[in-house]
Amino acid sequence: MGEFELLTRIRERLPPAGARLRLGSGDDAAVTLPGAATATSVDAVVDGVHFRRDRATLAQIGHKALATALSDLAAMGAEPGEAYVVLGMPHDLGEDEALELLDGMAALATATGTSLAGGDLTRSAQLFLAITVVGHADSAELLVARSGARPGDILVVTGELGGAAAGLQLLRAARCIDHTGVGSMHRAARLRGRQLEPVPRLGAGRALRAAGATAMIDISDGLGADAAHLAAASGVGLRIEAKAVPQAEGLQEVAAATDRDPLDLAINGGEDYELLASVPPARLTQARRDVEEAEKGTGLTAIGEVIAVEGVEIRLPGGGILEPAGFDQLA
Amino acid sequence: MGEFELLTRIRERLPPAGARLRLGSGDDAAVTLPGAATATSVDAVVDGVHFRRDRATLAQIGHKALATALSDLAAMGAEPGEAYVVLGMPHDLGEDEALELLDGMAALATATGTSLAGGDLTRSAQLFLAITVVGHADSAELLVARSGARPGDILVVTGELGGAAAGLQLLRAARCIDHTGVGSMHRAARLRGRQLEPVPRLGAGRALRAAGATAMIDISDGLGADAAHLAAASGVGLRIEAKAVPQAEGLQEVAAATDRDPLDLAINGGEDYELLASVPPARLTQARRDVEEAEKGTGLTAIGEVIAVEGVEIRLPGGGILEPAGFDQLA
Repeated sequence: MGEFELLTRIRERLPPAGARLRLGSGDDAAVTLPGAATATSVDAVVDGVHFRRDRATLAQIGHKALATALSDLAAMGAEPGEAYVVLGMPHDLGEDEALELLDGMAALATATGTSLAGGDLTRSAQLFLAITVVGHADSAELLVARSGARPGDILVVTGELGGAAAGLQLLRAARCIDHTGVGSMHRAARLRGRQLEPVPRLGAGRALRAAGATAMIDISDGLGADAAHLAAASGVGLRIEAKAVPQAEGLQEVAAATDRDPLDLAINGGEDYELLASVPPARLTQARRDVEEAEKGTGLTAIGEVIAVEGVEIRLPGGGILEPAGFDQLA
Repeated sequence: MGEFELLTRIRERLPPAGARLRLGSGDDAAVTLPGAATATSVDAVVDGVHFRRDRATLAQIGHKALATALSDLAAMGAEPGEAYVVLGMPHDLGEDEALELLDGMAALATATGTSLAGGDLTRSAQLFLAITVVGHADSAELLVARSGARPGDILVVTGELGGAAAGLQLLRAARCIDHTGVGSMHRAARLRGRQLEPVPRLGAGRALRAAGATAMIDISDGLGADAAHLAAASGVGLRIEAKAVPQAEGLQEVAAATDRDPLDLAINGGEDYELLASVPPARLTQARRDVEEAEKGTGLTAIGEVIAVEGVEIRLPGGGILEPAGFDQLA
């Protein structure tokens, strides 16, 4: 395996470390100067379970693994700090391929100001990545948990939903639908990008925290399922207006071409890594302005409200109620 | 898989969280109040690469995975804080077995004051664990890197070496050697325990830091290889007297019964998870007293010195020089 040589090559490619990192990869442990409070999250992805090597490049797999981990920091409103990466290498993953995977992570680390501060390499039958990310804040009270939503708060979502699910439909049906079915090659590529290279909403998360969000979660399992997590943690209910849910451009066309319900993809598709938050009504205007300023092109949309009766109620345009699905395993 | 139910059962079994943990498992991220500096290390173990399920119980596998991670914090002189655990679950690992694995970790977490603060579960073809540990200190300068050894420092080691390698020999040869070959059943069990359930030297590490250790590393790859890491990081040389290296009780007997060189097992066997450190001569007496006070029954032995000429020289009792082996993959 030449672990030490590979480690040397990896270290040469690491992006410049942030100011918090005092001692990086190569000692027994990385040494950092944290904020007064830290938010730490761990995410693992496994070949055949969370991704398929025939549908994504190694750089995309690396990008997405780090992006989904950072998305949890976004949902806390934390400042991204360090990432620690475990790479399980099967025999058919060569050194150059391991470095391609790292490059995908390193590019996102650079873009988000995250230091790749350490890690571990191991042989494994299956390719897997386990990523720990640490974010910082000036106090624990400044980090936004899932549990603070209060009746009367407005429920908001960043960006648009359903794009990642539509992108997955396109990847699955690559031989059956071409881009003409969804309007343009550019639009199809953008939808596939939502699935393969999600962008953690770190700026939007901090903006929502600063604007006074009372609870926040990232949408990984799907709006319905993640709304249920937030409602349960806060001990409240959520009423969502389905017609208010912002749908990704091209979702309607992909849904039509693949015989799926666009609303189902938007609400239960998952993997959009947008943020769902509750904000007091008086803070809504400020929150919208701050999110748009923090991430150009990313809107903040009110999609419902927090109510006292527990549970999640999704009101359909025709007047019915949609029962949110549980985790919809699309992969 | 019933991931949510298993998570609930896991959370019910977690040991009480430490004072630094403000928000544990169940939100997007754990929230902690760190020390002014943190030490973070990541370690992964994979079935068939780092352990074998026919040689260790699941509780032992969990224990060892956390122990080897915490050993890196010991080698920094850090106060143990939090651990984050990724568990890759193959289809033949049931919920009860996952909980047995967790119980092995939880017992060590409790014994060392480590909070199990978060994690992730995933399906996987192979059983694997990826563990991130975070330790704390009042300043970055109080954490001991590998790079501070200076010519004239005394090289010291905690405890005894070769026990883990002797235990592995016993496990491999279970059908060929019985305990009578190594003197007593108790002694054989203790050697197997050194291999299966290593104890991270957290108290000794903090004692060595407080006594002024200039560089420190834990002995995972073997004394020879880890001495080479420390020497290279510090830009110095190390001269080790092989006859001074403290050998585990029973090592001689196991080596004789399995036709191995006891000195080779002590120096190149690895996995003892004792600490190797350099201390200024004037601090040696204090360091020895502090280590013995911090961990009853654990001695501190001077085994050599730091010299200016780079490299590691291991002087044999007969007057020859032993070339330290690289990583000796015993598993």
